[in-house]
Amino acid sequence: MIAEADAVDAITASDLIVLLVLDYGTAREVLDRVTGEDLAGRTIVGAMTGSSHDAIALAEYVHGRGGRYLDAALEMYPVNIGTREGLINFGGDLDAWDEWRALLDPLAGTSVFLGTDPALPAYADAALAGGFFNVAMGGFLEAASFATRVGLSLEDLRPFVRVALALLEDHLLNHAIPAIDSGDFSTDQATVAVYLRAVRIWREEMIAAGQRAGLMTANLHNLEIAESAGYGASAIYAEYLTSRA
Amino acid sequence: MIAEADAVDAITASDLIVLLVLDYGTAREVLDRVTGEDLAGRTIVGAMTGSSHDAIALAEYVHGRGGRYLDAALEMYPVNIGTREGLINFGGDLDAWDEWRALLDPLAGTSVFLGTDPALPAYADAALAGGFFNVAMGGFLEAASFATRVGLSLEDLRPFVRVALALLEDHLLNHAIPAIDSGDFSTDQATVAVYLRAVRIWREEMIAAGQRAGLMTANLHNLEIAESAGYGASAIYAEYLTSRA
Repeated sequence: MIAEADAVDAITASDLIVLLVLDYGTAREVLDRVTGEDLAGRTIVGAMTGSSHDAIALAEYVHGRGGRYLDAALEMYPVNIGTREGLINFGGDLDAWDEWRALLDPLAGTSVFLGTDPALPAYADAALAGGFFNVAMGGFLEAASFATRVGLSLEDLRPFVRVALALLEDHLLNHAIPAIDSGDFSTDQATVAVYLRAVRIWREEMIAAGQRAGLMTANLHNLEIAESAGYGASAIYAEYLTSRA
Repeated sequence: MIAEADAVDAITASDLIVLLVLDYGTAREVLDRVTGEDLAGRTIVGAMTGSSHDAIALAEYVHGRGGRYLDAALEMYPVNIGTREGLINFGGDLDAWDEWRALLDPLAGTSVFLGTDPALPAYADAALAGGFFNVAMGGFLEAASFATRVGLSLEDLRPFVRVALALLEDHLLNHAIPAIDSGDFSTDQATVAVYLRAVRIWREEMIAAGQRAGLMTANLHNLEIAESAGYGASAIYAEYLTSRA
């Protein structure tokens, strides 16, 4: 975070301002100090971590002062994988994106403009950092707790973990996304009904061993709801269709 | 599945019999037909899919007839990834494994002997095919349902899915397993408390959009339990310590 006086000088001198400060509140304070100038003709890029409400509120504030707003979320590969590069998801003013894209693109290996809603980068975080990554991590930790309890060694399970990760990548990128995008949930592989039967057995193994199995129970529930809705003979990706409240 | 008469001939003529039939009940029926012979000196490998109870029951049956039993679970990479090879997890009689390992090893790219409990391959399935893979898949489908509802395109999210998968692989293999094996849950990265705060916000985004968010709610619950148990300042892998009922 740069000092406030410097930030004000930088902003009044620049047409593109990338704010990478502590949080959205701090970003707003920095912009508040630019009192003598409006933000007309200027593009503000907010690269803080926050909620969709934070992003929308800052966008409205910038718009109210005549500026254009882009929200940005940095999604970085593990620091220890030196050969891979980061991703930045952008959302907000399309004209600003078109004007500044050439300057913003090199900031990361991959830059994606998700759409004109400045909340989209925060939504993407909730979906993939939260709903997918954090749930998958929690599932692994439940699995590991069960595994060591019944006498398995995690070192011995490493090859199986690699198989499961490879399967997951194949399912998500090559099957789940195309099924959802096309609306075609037919399959000649394992159906919702087949997974439901297996998950019932697997969950019983966990419960019988004395595990809480909270995620596995929620997973069973999702499969039951999908089957009850008539998708027993569909691909497991049909859970997508029954995830709404 | 080979015809029963052939199976009986094969069994009475062989010291190593790999049973890859429909299920454990069928395997038992095939072995029942070998009436004139006991199974002394013979090793039976059961490669059916089933529960830990199925594996233990078949092992006891084979032992009761004087034979040795190995349970085997085939874990295959996606068929369309031609350059990768499968994994077979074995569990059961150690002497039988030592005697037949050279013959069993080439059946898959990787063979692992998990231990002398014939239930271990079924337990490994429950843990990693169930508790990890199926939960992770379910989490992705909840995430995808939320994402499209709030205006995100799954095609635009592909780079982020790849980042999340790479992060997951790095966390599981390079950090979670070593933390669990060493019992060292200290971290200079995101703690349970940091994840808990983020997951609360992410889950609220999903609920506010009208999603059921069952897995995300179970995930929040797991994090709350870990923090309540005093692991707020620990690495997220400390969820492992609070997964028992």
